[in-house]
Amino acid sequence: MTDIPEKIEDLAKKANQASLRIANLSTEIKNKALDNIAETLLNNKSEILKQNAIDVSEAEKNGLSKSLLKRLILTDEKIDELIKNVISVKNLEDPVGKTLSAVELDTNLELYQITCPIGVIGMVFESRPDVLVQIASLCIKSGNAVIMKGGSEALNSNKCLHSLITQSISSANPLFKDSIILFETREEVDVILKMDKYIQLLIPRGSSSFVEYVKNNTKIPVLGHSEGICHIYVDKYADRKKALDICFDAKCQYPAVCNAMETLLVHRDIANSFLPDMIKKFKNAGVEIRGCPETISIVNDIKLATEQDWRTEYNDLILSIKIVSDIDEAVEHINHYGSHHTDAIITEDNERGKKFLNFVDSSSIMQNCSTRFSDGYKYGKGAELGISTNKIHARGPVGLEGLVIYKYILIGNGHTVSQYVGENAKNFTHRKIV
Amino acid sequence: MTDIPEKIEDLAKKANQASLRIANLSTEIKNKALDNIAETLLNNKSEILKQNAIDVSEAEKNGLSKSLLKRLILTDEKIDELIKNVISVKNLEDPVGKTLSAVELDTNLELYQITCPIGVIGMVFESRPDVLVQIASLCIKSGNAVIMKGGSEALNSNKCLHSLITQSISSANPLFKDSIILFETREEVDVILKMDKYIQLLIPRGSSSFVEYVKNNTKIPVLGHSEGICHIYVDKYADRKKALDICFDAKCQYPAVCNAMETLLVHRDIANSFLPDMIKKFKNAGVEIRGCPETISIVNDIKLATEQDWRTEYNDLILSIKIVSDIDEAVEHINHYGSHHTDAIITEDNERGKKFLNFVDSSSIMQNCSTRFSDGYKYGKGAELGISTNKIHARGPVGLEGLVIYKYILIGNGHTVSQYVGENAKNFTHRKIV
Repeated sequence: MTDIPEKIEDLAKKANQASLRIANLSTEIKNKALDNIAETLLNNKSEILKQNAIDVSEAEKNGLSKSLLKRLILTDEKIDELIKNVISVKNLEDPVGKTLSAVELDTNLELYQITCPIGVIGMVFESRPDVLVQIASLCIKSGNAVIMKGGSEALNSNKCLHSLITQSISSANPLFKDSIILFETREEVDVILKMDKYIQLLIPRGSSSFVEYVKNNTKIPVLGHSEGICHIYVDKYADRKKALDICFDAKCQYPAVCNAMETLLVHRDIANSFLPDMIKKFKNAGVEIRGCPETISIVNDIKLATEQDWRTEYNDLILSIKIVSDIDEAVEHINHYGSHHTDAIITEDNERGKKFLNFVDSSSIMQNCSTRFSDGYKYGKGAELGISTNKIHARGPVGLEGLVIYKYILIGNGHTVSQYVGENAKNFTHRKIV
Repeated sequence: MTDIPEKIEDLAKKANQASLRIANLSTEIKNKALDNIAETLLNNKSEILKQNAIDVSEAEKNGLSKSLLKRLILTDEKIDELIKNVISVKNLEDPVGKTLSAVELDTNLELYQITCPIGVIGMVFESRPDVLVQIASLCIKSGNAVIMKGGSEALNSNKCLHSLITQSISSANPLFKDSIILFETREEVDVILKMDKYIQLLIPRGSSSFVEYVKNNTKIPVLGHSEGICHIYVDKYADRKKALDICFDAKCQYPAVCNAMETLLVHRDIANSFLPDMIKKFKNAGVEIRGCPETISIVNDIKLATEQDWRTEYNDLILSIKIVSDIDEAVEHINHYGSHHTDAIITEDNERGKKFLNFVDSSSIMQNCSTRFSDGYKYGKGAELGISTNKIHARGPVGLEGLVIYKYILIGNGHTVSQYVGENAKNFTHRKIV
């Protein structure tokens, strides 16, 4: 722990203490805090835009990439959207204090498993200052403290938003003090990654390489995904129109996102009849096609896909296409080259559909619909913390449930374990109450 | 990945492939495999004992510590116990394929959240060969593959048990091939810790320092606990008899385990009347007492507790005692010095009890019963994977539920996301089905 500056460690300790205080706040108080934030953001739009403009002008001077710049810029509409998000988090059910199970171990000895906050969440993000507001709202609603570190390119925006948020929540209840900490630029992301003593879960938001860097440099559990290499397999029993529409939607509706299709797999028996029209549709939309040799033998004038293509998340109007002999080959390709994010089958044969759904090892698997549905809002979660490609804790689109864990509470009446061992041992009843 | 020997990586790849095959095995096949194991262990007792005797004699020569030696030795009774455990795992409900939630997103667009295995579990353990059988059974029942590395002191026992188990499951179904891999002594634990590409969850079993070493040297999520510093707080409204019995049970019934009490906190108002009898009872049982200055002023002839005592898991007949001014001080002490494992309050005042249960940040919190109840079997889980002090995924005593995660399955009928955006956008229904 020698590498953590004392001042930083002190802030982390304060966040820890705050997390214990706010773990049991009532839904009413948490909702009041969220209402205050929404109101304060509305009343301070011009100040937010002013601070953001400083960041943007600085970023332009420093030659920040266009895509990062786009994510940095706040507008009147974006702030309205943010305010709407805060209210929608407020309207979600409180995830804390729910009874997950209850068992009578013996007469008057009852065990309850109750949801509770995780403690202190670490949030590291690039560029987008709106992420700060989103994550703060989710942490407030779930009773967690949060330590944040944004990119230096958004420093003024982040400081402004953080200050407005902390004012808002402290006026809702003084117990919120120190529960949302923002680290400023002079402290490095690396310091957060080292604070496994104080932070129970890390949520990185940014480019794949950024998330990968976080995962590789911390002992703290990380909730996030680094890549979305999503596939659609068009089966020989696919409905032709559904296949054309869904594949087009999955690639073209919003190609820059993680749940867009990157590789199309097509059953050999229908490749001749399906691929020419499909590829024509894609080409008309400006999609660059990279095909396996067999694809090229059907539709010429396309690039040859390399081994690297099957492993690539283009996030762009590029698509690789491979012809496969059957579901087994499709499943194998997906499990081998995919990123366990979202994959779909198009088939009218539900037995074959079921096989695909069973054997593909991804967080979301779909039949006869677009991979683009893989998203917290579309899944009805109300708010999305992120899409997780982890295989523990929370997987796929994650909402508030990713920010809670549980505690066991056992209420007895003088019960000792020695009563349950030896000659006249009592027996456990283990009767489910809930 | 350069440090992983090719042969080892090859085995890990095979375990990965196996994990995909066994993820969907029927309950019937998995139960058959467990039945086979029980039968094979019963039929090969003498061989197991013979191989174990080689390890034991070698360990004695090498001067293995008495406590490790005790854990290494298998007996006829221990094997019977193991067989019983295998059957009890068989009798547990299959944790795979359960529907956790189901939501209609729109007409004919239905989302299911279904439990599934995690994939490949990494198991590293010291000394106790019985752990191999326990974890193998739990992985089989939950459809996970497992890569194991035992201690070199138990090599012959482990090889024998592993060979009997792999025979048993392969004869139940050939798909089990390569699903339980044992690494032998020449490969180091460190190699397993590096295989984050192949292993999704690590379960270490052994001393606190061993678990700590594992946690500090891997990027793989670790399920386990390193320490159990458990407290009982005797409130001013405690029932005297319950307090005496429970505290005695929590310290003396089995002092070597993680859920035994290490520190007793007593409310100042009852310290004078309670502590002399309590300490006498402890001293009669051979417990060494280390008290705060105030405790010593009430009962002399005891050692002074140092700052280090509050942080120590004795796992022995030693107890530290501190007098506190009220619940708040007790809670603060527990959250500061404890290990977030199991802590109890003795009080007849349920309001005060509730405060304690709410504000202590531990995986199990108890009122009027012994901390020794914190255990998977006693909690009715049928089998225990371990007790987790993690705050994500699984916390407290963990059974089969710690070995599963979920996948989302979305079934549509040609649904595209573009239908839900723009001018004539369709609306989601988000109607709960389950």
